[in-house]
Amino acid sequence: MTVTDSARTAADRALTAAADAAMDAYRTAVATYSREKLKSIAMDGADGTPTMFIDVVIEDAIITAATAAGANVLSEERGWVDVGSAVTLVVDPVDGSANAAAGIPLSCFSAAVVIDGEFTEAMTCWLHTGERWWASRTESAFRTSGCTSLSSAAVSMLRPHPRNRDAWWRVASTATRIRILSCSTLESVFVATGSADAFVDAGSDTHRLMDIAAAVVLVEASGGAVLDAYDRPIEFGIDLTKRWSGIVAATPELAHELRGAIQG
Amino acid sequence: MTVTDSARTAADRALTAAADAAMDAYRTAVATYSREKLKSIAMDGADGTPTMFIDVVIEDAIITAATAAGANVLSEERGWVDVGSAVTLVVDPVDGSANAAAGIPLSCFSAAVVIDGEFTEAMTCWLHTGERWWASRTESAFRTSGCTSLSSAAVSMLRPHPRNRDAWWRVASTATRIRILSCSTLESVFVATGSADAFVDAGSDTHRLMDIAAAVVLVEASGGAVLDAYDRPIEFGIDLTKRWSGIVAATPELAHELRGAIQG
Repeated sequence: MTVTDSARTAADRALTAAADAAMDAYRTAVATYSREKLKSIAMDGADGTPTMFIDVVIEDAIITAATAAGANVLSEERGWVDVGSAVTLVVDPVDGSANAAAGIPLSCFSAAVVIDGEFTEAMTCWLHTGERWWASRTESAFRTSGCTSLSSAAVSMLRPHPRNRDAWWRVASTATRIRILSCSTLESVFVATGSADAFVDAGSDTHRLMDIAAAVVLVEASGGAVLDAYDRPIEFGIDLTKRWSGIVAATPELAHELRGAIQG
Repeated sequence: MTVTDSARTAADRALTAAADAAMDAYRTAVATYSREKLKSIAMDGADGTPTMFIDVVIEDAIITAATAAGANVLSEERGWVDVGSAVTLVVDPVDGSANAAAGIPLSCFSAAVVIDGEFTEAMTCWLHTGERWWASRTESAFRTSGCTSLSSAAVSMLRPHPRNRDAWWRVASTATRIRILSCSTLESVFVATGSADAFVDAGSDTHRLMDIAAAVVLVEASGGAVLDAYDRPIEFGIDLTKRWSGIVAATPELAHELRGAIQG
């Protein structure tokens, strides 16, 4: 076994352990606590935003499981947990935590594996149903829709803000269909599997690394493209204050057209 | 047993039979046919809009089951199927059919029972998971959030259109959170259960009776209110060309504030 094979085995084990821990913690949390408790602000996260109680309890379970399986963890609330491993998981413990806390069953555990500074594989797990989507950089069971034109695209978007109203409207009024599920990693899965044609943050710079890291692997290995609307590289780093306006698209052509529509 | 009790028993039997038939037909359809086939246009529906193949196969299964159980059916594609019963089901066979055809797992069977011209009970069934929500006019296991103010409300919306852009933006920019799930009956269920505060068609007059009939029962019995943005009564009738801009809200106060925001 080469070092790389060994690291990949450790990564697979850590990914699975983290996803299992997230599922268990999610089910316990929604069965145990009130919605008020789940959405109460428990701390300020390492990403600089207020953190809900549901995020904290699920992240703690994930960190325990992933580090026990031998991986470092970069996660939105606790930040960088370095156990000296060659393998790092970039984790969103509960993507769509506002959904999860309210009882809207659209939230996911999502993680991308980083080895030697590169994303190598990723998994997203829908916490309500247990469905999981996995891919490596070179191996995916999924194919994007192949859509190349915004005017024939079904596009998932982040909600609009006053700061990106015009860019948001340019995308929304050109696309053939718009969805806002408030769960970036699930919306990216739907691009990988060909159910949606694109998912975008239309220039509001809301995306953190863990919101789009899994998409880089899952969608690109499935034939799609992942860009930033302002051409910043989407790459591993432990500074959780960095933000992107992610464009996750079925094809490079569609990604570039979306970038043009957002830049205006 | 009074006539009314007998009709209610027949209604419960027809509702359950229709939901079971919809679940079976949905699972068979998504396992059997390609996405291209599922979303291909099979006919022009009785509601005046093009009908996808997935709508036709599931509606046919529902009509067979509901009429065998002794109920008339009013449904979007076939229209009014009168078997001379005192009980009518107003059915949306696949609410969110564009989702269902694309492989986005957000689509529902939804039906409201009409006896003597009045809605008496309703059920919505999430086709991907089999979860069901039922209520009568006087009995609900759910409670809305109690939210009374748009500025603190999480609101689900239909996608914006050029014809209602200003009204859409007035609602979206005031609410604290916006979702577009493209499945009206599931979005209404989330209002009934307190997971979302409101669901609106912000003045685009897209809603047909079957899009909001179940909400009238489920949400009002759970403490909420269902209005039309332009004050048209939401009541049973077999003219499927009628449209509404439905407002489904956690409280009457929130419903009235949304009506004001839409009317501008």
